Order: sequence, then C-alpha cells, then structure tokens
Amino acid sequence: MELSSGNRAARAVPVVAAVLPAGGSGERLGGATPKQFCALQGRPLVSYTVRAMERVGWISNIIVVVSPENIETMKSIVEKYGHKRVTVVQGGVTRHRSIFNGLKVLAENEFSNCLLQKPEVVIIHDAVRPFVEEDILSKVVMAAREHGAAGSIRPLVSTVIACAADGSLDHSLERARYRASEMPQAFLFDVIYEAYKQCTDYDLDYGTECLHLALKYCKTNAKLVEGTADLWKVTYKRDLYAAESIIKDNLSQEVCVITNVKDAVAQVVFLLCESLKSQIKVEALSTSVSKNDSHLQNIFSQQCYNFVYVNDETCAFQETQQLVDMLEKSNIPLLNPVVLILVHLNISENSFSIGMEELTRIKKFAREVKMKNILLYGLLIQYK
Amino acid sequence: MELSSGNRAARAVPVVAAVLPAGGSGERLGGATPKQFCALQGRPLVSYTVRAMERVGWISNIIVVVSPENIETMKSIVEKYGHKRVTVVQGGVTRHRSIFNGLKVLAENEFSNCLLQKPEVVIIHDAVRPFVEEDILSKVVMAAREHGAAGSIRPLVSTVIACAADGSLDHSLERARYRASEMPQAFLFDVIYEAYKQCTDYDLDYGTECLHLALKYCKTNAKLVEGTADLWKVTYKRDLYAAESIIKDNLSQEVCVITNVKDAVAQVVFLLCESLKSQIKVEALSTSVSKNDSHLQNIFSQQCYNFVYVNDETCAFQETQQLVDMLEKSNIPLLNPVVLILVHLNISENSFSIGMEELTRIKKFAREVKMKNILLYGLLIQYK
Repeated sequence: MELSSGNRAARAVPVVAAVLPAGGSGERLGGATPKQFCALQGRPLVSYTVRAMERVGWISNIIVVVSPENIETMKSIVEKYGHKRVTVVQGGVTRHRSIFNGLKVLAENEFSNCLLQKPEVVIIHDAVRPFVEEDILSKVVMAAREHGAAGSIRPLVSTVIACAADGSLDHSLERARYRASEMPQAFLFDVIYEAYKQCTDYDLDYGTECLHLALKYCKTNAKLVEGTADLWKVTYKRDLYAAESIIKDNLSQEVCVITNVKDAVAQVVFLLCESLKSQIKVEALSTSVSKNDSHLQNIFSQQCYNFVYVNDETCAFQETQQLVDMLEKSNIPLLNPVVLILVHLNISENSFSIGMEELTRIKKFAREVKMKNILLYGLLIQYK
Repeated sequence: MELSSGNRAARAVPVVAAVLPAGGSGERLGGATPKQFCALQGRPLVSYTVRAMERVGWISNIIVVVSPENIETMKSIVEKYGHKRVTVVQGGVTRHRSIFNGLKVLAENEFSNCLLQKPEVVIIHDAVRPFVEEDILSKVVMAAREHGAAGSIRPLVSTVIACAADGSLDHSLERARYRASEMPQAFLFDVIYEAYKQCTDYDLDYGTECLHLALKYCKTNAKLVEGTADLWKVTYKRDLYAAESIIKDNLSQEVCVITNVKDAVAQVVFLLCESLKSQIKVEALSTSVSKNDSHLQNIFSQQCYNFVYVNDETCAFQETQQLVDMLEKSNIPLLNPVVLILVHLNISENSFSIGMEELTRIKKFAREVKMKNILLYGLLIQYK
C-alpha cells in the first residue's frame, strides 16, 4: 500500500471506506437468483468481492448495500465466510439510491446511531466485480485525494454507434476518444455526498454514473485511471462461467500450510512457506487440527485445494485422519481432487521418531482416501 | 429459413456468401496463439464459428480470411473437421484489408481464377463469435436486401465516457441513445464492395467498422437489428473460459444415434430420433461401425458425449467393442464421461435373438469400460 508515499508523504494515511451496491436484480442474467448471490464453487459471488476488499488492510469499513429482501441472506454470508469490517445496509429501488443509502451510514451526525467513522475518501465498487486488485484501488484513492474524484476505465471492446429514431445507423463513434467507465471509482467523501444530496429525483431514478453526479453538482472532473482486464462486471450467464473458471484457476494456485509445531522447529515451517511463495500463493495457519477451529473452518469454506500439514509428533495419524475427515465433510473433494501433503519433521538425534508401523498405516490410509478424491502424500524431514 | 417469405415472396432466394475475418493476432488475450486458433475442448475456436455458418444451408460460400502464416493451419482445420463450402483466403495487415481481400474473391472478373458465384448479399462475421444463430443471420440478410446494409447491435454493458486531453472526464454519454455495434453484419455485395474500392488507405489501416464505410462512401444508412447476448466476441482469456463452458453445456445436450439397420426396422430408428428431438439435439448416422468411416470420425472430432447405437444383429458385441475402442482413441472420455446406449432391436417372432451369454458378456464389458469413463447401457426392444 503506497497511499502515504510519494509527494504526499507528509499527509497522514487517509481514512478510506468502501460502498458496494449489491441490490441489482440480475435481469440480464436470465436466472431467478440475482447474480451477486449466485454460487461459484459453492460460494456466493458477493463474498468473493467482499473478500477482495477485505484483504486490503487500509479500507476501514465495507458497506454492502442490498435490497430489503436480501438483508438476512447477506448477513448470513458475512457470518458464514467470517467477513470482517462489513456493515450490511438496506438499499433503495435504484442503484443511485442504494449508493446514497450506503454513504448516509458513513456521514457524521446523519443518523444518531452511526458508529462508523466518516472517511476522507470513499471507494464505490460493484458487488459483481470480484477480481479487483489492491493496485487499482490504491490508484483511484490517490487520484481522488488529489482531484476529488477518480474512475477506472477500459478500452471499448465494440464500436459504439448512435441510433437514429427510425432504427438506422446515425453515426459511429471514434473508438480512440472514448472509454468504457468501469469500477472501482473513488471520491472525496464530501464531494460525492454533496453531489447526492443536491441531485434530483430524476438523477436518482435514471442515472447510473457517479462520476457524472460529481461533475454536474460539484464541478469535479474525475481523473480517469486505466484499469486491468480483471475489472469486468459479471453481467451475463457466460460471465458466471468465466468467473467460476478464474476462481478455480486461482484456487489451484493456492496452498494452505497447517502446522502446530513450535519453537525452533517453527523456523522450518517459516522457510518452507517463504520458498513456496515464489511458486504459489501461501496461507499459513498455526493451529491444532480440531473440528472447532474457526480458522480451519474458514479455509475450508473458501475451497482451498492444496494443503501441507507439518507436524513433529511421534504419532500424527489421528490428526491426519481428522483433517481428511474435515476435508471430506467440506465437500471440496466432490468437485476437485484435493492434495494433502503430510510433512513429518524429525527432531530426534539418531533415528526417525516415526515408526515403520506408522508409515505403513499412513500408506494404507492414502490408498483409501484416494477413492474420496483426496491425494495424500507423506514426507519425512530429518531436522537437527 | 424465411428469406423468401413475407412481402418479398416474389423475389428469388438471394445468393448469400459470408466473409469471416480471422487474421487477428489476439493481443488482448495475452497468449501466444491467436484466439481464433485456441483450442476449446480440443477444437479450434474458428472451427466452431465455421460450423455455425455451415449449418445454415442458404449460405453458399464461406470465405475465411487468415494471415499468411496461418493459411496452412486453417486449411488443415477445414480438412480435419470436414468443413464444406469454405474457401481460405490470405488476409491483409488490418481487419479492413482482410475483409476487402475476402470480398475480392467473391467479385466477378476480379481474379481470372475465380470460381465462386458473386453473391447478392454478403455477411461479414467475426471468426471469434462462435455462437451465432441462423435467426440473426437471416434477419441481417433480409434487412440488408431492403436497406443495402444491416448490423446487429447490443445494449451497452458499461457507460461510455469521453476523455479530455489531460486524462480527466470530459462527459459521459447518455446510455439509451447508444448501442454496441456487434457482428454479424450484412450488405448488398455491390454496396460494400464499392465502399471498399473507394475508401482511403487511412480507412483501410485505422478503421474497423464496415457500417461506417457503407455510410461514408455509398450513403447507405445501415438498418440496426437487436441481437441476442450470444453474439459476444471472444476477446479476453475469461471469454475463452466462458466459451468452453458454453460448448460443454451444448455438447451435453446433443446425442448421436448410430445405426446400420435397414428396411422396416429403420422406421423404429426414425421414430426414436423424432421422439428424442423434443428433448435433445439429435444427429443420426446410418453407417456400419468401422474405423475408416469418415462420418463417424467427424462426429468423434466434434466431441459428442452421448451415443445411441441401434442394431438388429444376433451378435453386436464386436461392433460395440470397436465403437468403445474408437471412443477411447478419440480422447473424449478423458475430459468427460461418455454415455453409450446399446439398443438391440429384436425382430424374430418368439424369442430374443440375443442370447443370455451375449448379455452377460456385455454386462462384464460395461463394468470394464466404466473405468475408462465410458458408461455403457443396454436396451432390448422386441419389434414385430
């Protein structure tokens, strides 16, 4: 995060909040479930987007605005996937009204029961753009601090044409001069809140573009920032297919390292994680394997496919069995093969602390669990 | 096909050709292979698009324009997938130059060795839009006959904005007045060919929109036709993911009925196909199962997942085995389970012509091939 670097180093890191309108009905998708609640690899789309925002440590509050009938659904998603710093807010009948409701919660003195800090900068992002990265969020926030407003843009994929009243071609636009306006956008909170307070009912009912409101009511010309292809919006059914494939791809590039080793031995685990990091995304979890461990449950609900379990006990069989049991119950191996690598760290001087009998037991167990789509491998490391 | 119906019933069905520019380098995809040659379920994207055009009986010629280095690749695709009515033509350095090359081949007297009939109407369609349906093709052709030019359009997904020179927002366009210009487009051949002959080098090098050329050089205002969401263009990697999922979905909705029965019994197969048609797309193939059968090889190269094999012989075991063998060699069961239903038609008066021994053999065989991801089922039908 570079928000406090550069020529504005002297200024404190700004308070940043994010508003995610998630009230859409998903008409264009042609399904009964609004697209933000469609399950991708078993998890609702909106949860991926919330996670993308949540991973950015400098966003202090995430306001998810949903239609009244989905408040409970959204709250249960926050609960189930352990989302933090999230406030669920009831939306209005249009996108602009929903965003306005989200902003009101962040405004000081607007509601007596408001407990959230008024941000200097607010990010507005769609719930149906799950692949947003910290880099573009940081860019729009910095640009908004400087210019009052900022929006991400992409080149146009198709030529845009103006239609005549009789349904014939009026003219086509020169592609180079125009851009598709995408999300995230960011604003000085006072600018966008003022624009919403001033704008007309017509704006609230028929407009969609926040940049336009900032320009019209606050004379703020947004800075435009070129975004990456990841910013695309899940609109049609084909986009759900694409999103699911990307999520699968990403998951296969992640590994979760679980360990309960302590003291000197923990250093080995640290080194293992560091060297894995150049190849694959690593999530390290120092915990004992137990069904009630919320970190572990959270990992399982995020559908990780690759696990390394590091232990230094004489008998790790029971814990391995429990891990496999939890994996099976998580339904992850139903859709994809899960790889579990069992690393046994041997710290005794001369002989391996794990016996031949134990090894045979694990080998037999590996053959069994292969049928359940769990690929169990073992590794012995002598550590002095 | 309704091209000759309606108020133009008196006019003969027009000669229609299609030009598919497939010369793009696929920069936006970020891969080494141009997107039109990327394999989806083992088959190049362009082959799906050619098939979509080829299925429309009233398109007499399909001109695929590729860059010089891909001529041989494209010719081998035409050969491998048994495409008919396709001419591979060398393209120019830009999209417009490639389309112009494609049109030249269709123009009379332009080349001394030209063997193709000059069409009344020409369709221009992208090689990277594989899901085009006959309905929209027919609509743009009819509109082009009436108006000289026609293009399919879609609502804009994102707001379009104009950028100021300093990289800030100049203004955003009113979404309702504008549309995304998509493919297919269609033109009276003389209109678009004249436009290309008149247009400048600047147009040929920097323009992309054929509708624009028809308007500028032939004063022809194109009729705009609302297309379906299927018309989208494979542009980014995510679009390849989406296309692959859609193709898989479509394949699971198709069945190939293979039979070698003749005479009276063939009627049963006909009825079977007819009743299946309400549920699933049926391709019927009357052929003996042999490795050299080109129809059968063609079906396998198209990656069908569901097969019904109808026979009335006393011993169908050998042919079933051969069919399974061919399926296995086709690699189809590697990616997806293949269903093969063996239908034995019994035409003898009293007893089943197939013996218990034969049945047991097939049951055992079914257990074996299940390991190879081929699900073999048997059905006996008594027919009098």
